[in-house]
Amino acid sequence: MSRRVDVAIIGAGSAGVSALRTVRQFTDNYLLIDGGALGTSCARVGCMPSKSLIETARLFQNRHRQQSRGITGTEHLSVHTKDVLEQVRSDRDFFTRTTANLTDELSKNHFLQGYARFDAPNQLDVDGKKFECGAVIIATGTQAYVPTQWQSLGHRLLVSDWLFEQTDLPHKLGVVGLGAIGLEVGQALAHLGHDVVGVDLADALGGAQDPAIIKVAHDTIGRSLPMHTGHHVTLSGSGDGVSMQFGDNRCGVDNVIVAVGRTPNVANLNLQALGVPLNTAGVPDSDPQTCQIGDLPVFIAGDVSVHQPLQHEAIDEGAIAGFNSVCADIRAYRRRVPLKITFTDPQIAQFGCGYGSLDLTTTVVGQALMADNGRARISGMNAGLIRLYANRAGLLLGGELLCDHAEHMAHLLAWQITHSATVASILRQPFYHPVVEEAIRSALRTMAKKLYKNHSVVEWQEPILL
Amino acid sequence: MSRRVDVAIIGAGSAGVSALRTVRQFTDNYLLIDGGALGTSCARVGCMPSKSLIETARLFQNRHRQQSRGITGTEHLSVHTKDVLEQVRSDRDFFTRTTANLTDELSKNHFLQGYARFDAPNQLDVDGKKFECGAVIIATGTQAYVPTQWQSLGHRLLVSDWLFEQTDLPHKLGVVGLGAIGLEVGQALAHLGHDVVGVDLADALGGAQDPAIIKVAHDTIGRSLPMHTGHHVTLSGSGDGVSMQFGDNRCGVDNVIVAVGRTPNVANLNLQALGVPLNTAGVPDSDPQTCQIGDLPVFIAGDVSVHQPLQHEAIDEGAIAGFNSVCADIRAYRRRVPLKITFTDPQIAQFGCGYGSLDLTTTVVGQALMADNGRARISGMNAGLIRLYANRAGLLLGGELLCDHAEHMAHLLAWQITHSATVASILRQPFYHPVVEEAIRSALRTMAKKLYKNHSVVEWQEPILL
Repeated sequence: MSRRVDVAIIGAGSAGVSALRTVRQFTDNYLLIDGGALGTSCARVGCMPSKSLIETARLFQNRHRQQSRGITGTEHLSVHTKDVLEQVRSDRDFFTRTTANLTDELSKNHFLQGYARFDAPNQLDVDGKKFECGAVIIATGTQAYVPTQWQSLGHRLLVSDWLFEQTDLPHKLGVVGLGAIGLEVGQALAHLGHDVVGVDLADALGGAQDPAIIKVAHDTIGRSLPMHTGHHVTLSGSGDGVSMQFGDNRCGVDNVIVAVGRTPNVANLNLQALGVPLNTAGVPDSDPQTCQIGDLPVFIAGDVSVHQPLQHEAIDEGAIAGFNSVCADIRAYRRRVPLKITFTDPQIAQFGCGYGSLDLTTTVVGQALMADNGRARISGMNAGLIRLYANRAGLLLGGELLCDHAEHMAHLLAWQITHSATVASILRQPFYHPVVEEAIRSALRTMAKKLYKNHSVVEWQEPILL
Repeated sequence: MSRRVDVAIIGAGSAGVSALRTVRQFTDNYLLIDGGALGTSCARVGCMPSKSLIETARLFQNRHRQQSRGITGTEHLSVHTKDVLEQVRSDRDFFTRTTANLTDELSKNHFLQGYARFDAPNQLDVDGKKFECGAVIIATGTQAYVPTQWQSLGHRLLVSDWLFEQTDLPHKLGVVGLGAIGLEVGQALAHLGHDVVGVDLADALGGAQDPAIIKVAHDTIGRSLPMHTGHHVTLSGSGDGVSMQFGDNRCGVDNVIVAVGRTPNVANLNLQALGVPLNTAGVPDSDPQTCQIGDLPVFIAGDVSVHQPLQHEAIDEGAIAGFNSVCADIRAYRRRVPLKITFTDPQIAQFGCGYGSLDLTTTVVGQALMADNGRARISGMNAGLIRLYANRAGLLLGGELLCDHAEHMAHLLAWQITHSATVASILRQPFYHPVVEEAIRSALRTMAKKLYKNHSVVEWQEPILL
């Protein structure tokens, strides 16, 4: 006989736990099902361990700035990847404990370890146990994608999901895929002393879309590691190592890190039982504002939805799916202003409308070189470029940033888009001195010149009549 | 015979140059008068050289974080204040050249080197040359204040105006005055290896007003240098050094850095000729929204106005005075949201309404410890506290931050106050993961619990009806 639950949540990662927190405000008759390693992708294999690696690489890289400012003895500094990876795992264990504890709190009625499989849109089978569900939330996450023809490389091929499990890494490393993960990890390992070469079919780095940003990204990040873009790559075993072939180049590396995307964890779910078509990612389409699949009582949330594989978006989707799984009416929720950060040196950030989605015939573009920013000059971190986009009325639409502290400036500007801020209104905000944010003002001024007749006075508040 | 000018600007610093840029959009018959060293206070003796000193101190201090993350050899790092000061002057010269160049461009008709003195509100005497002025803008800046009883200490007493001219500094240093300048310089020199002791009559550090912030500031910055607050200090020469006496303590130092405030540069101006009373700072009161002195054709802009001695405020006052000096009607301009940053480690920042100006009976206070922020934890920079203030309707009023990256977070939040953002509306902004900005969300959540019945769902956008 099957048990009846109001809501079943499949997956105890960021999205699933967010759905859980929402659902249990409305009903006690819920079930969380998880078959894999506990802890979120973010804490286990994603954001947190990569930040730990990047932080150490950045501190080691700091020796060049130390030396340039008269600090002597930097030639004695050294670091071993083995020690760095141990620290990464120690950091990771701290953060996975924090998230995994949430599932420990749940009773047997509320949490089931096992693999869920759809018998019908509202019927689940978990290792033989049957459940009749008011609603189901799919939040199973993703895993690193490895093309089948490369799987024979065995232990010589690494992906982010198990990279941080390595006790050490060999000297020569190839990175295939220069999106956020490949670029972050590849550059950090290059800074730690590895000989790293990067290859990508696409020209874009770290998800950048703006050609001006991509060019400067190649110039700046290219100082850390050679990057070959626009090439298909062929990998083949060669002795203990891997031979990489791309364009007319061939190079041998010890290991290759493959970061060519992530694939939804849906193999065990029997999604065919939902009776709806699956998209090219192998999941049904869902509405980003409701997280619902068609008009089924089935919702999909987090990375597995393939909307935006980012932790803060996954948490939102979990909450939206959670609300809609228990409320009488399906409601559409407004999503947050898009924001994406790649933690390279310099960082790459996008916010608001992406360059690829702009109507360039009606867009006013502003830019500022970080080389001209006094504070960035003093810190020796003044490589980079800021590009901002507005419409003809001056409304800020979005931007791409390539600079130190891009993570902070992208928040600053994304939070202005929420308020429908214009080039003029942002110029009337306080800019302290000396700060890197002054580069934003420089970029806005180039836009003000194109937008406003009174551009030279637009920075001062409209006078209040006395 | 006197020459007639539409506007005379006294002082070629940040405020004066800003006034100049404004005025010359309206008239060519203007005169800039400056008697001192060219270049702004900011570039010569203020923001820029101090940031240069702080940057080197921070990079040297980084060796502790390098060591804690497995980087070996940090015991070989060393730095000499002599070299650091040389670099500071090299940075400074770069920035003063940039600002001083503006006055080089001006013709003899537009720029006069000399000391201006009022004969009457609209009459100036510059070293014997007489000018009849449509309006006068006083933008003469300030200089470090040294109480007369300490002037006999001679070269053993240092102030920020000539600190960076020293070729080297002795080992034991006292700092009198723990506002922004004293605290920044004192901590940086302590990090460079000096034995520094700080004393202040007031308990506040770096201008902090919130008692919770002040307490944590003592705990964190106190690790760099011992600080004795709440004491009058007596200084007296003692051999080659200085004896400092405060409370029941007496200690000997080689030199003492005095940072007890700045005093307006008005000694030569003969302000009595304006026929208006002078305030305790020795300048006439002026309206911060018009920069006008009473109903005289005389305006006062920048640090000398003693409104807010900050570079970005000085530039605004220069512009406001500039507009009002040439336009038929005097207009009031809205000032920017207050923002102040002290570049210590951790940084101290205030934005919006200060703690001292809050009505605590109607204020909702939220806070978050940086120790709980994952990203700050990874970077080893997780000492600090965030305090935010809202009214009972949830409107963000202001806040004080004590943390790494406070400069960025203070911009982020000040720019929300401009839009009348509420605790709920800010919670609906995108927070990336993992970033230090997530600590702001933690603080806002503590406020949401006090403010909203639906606090657990307030973070998600109001649903859009389908």
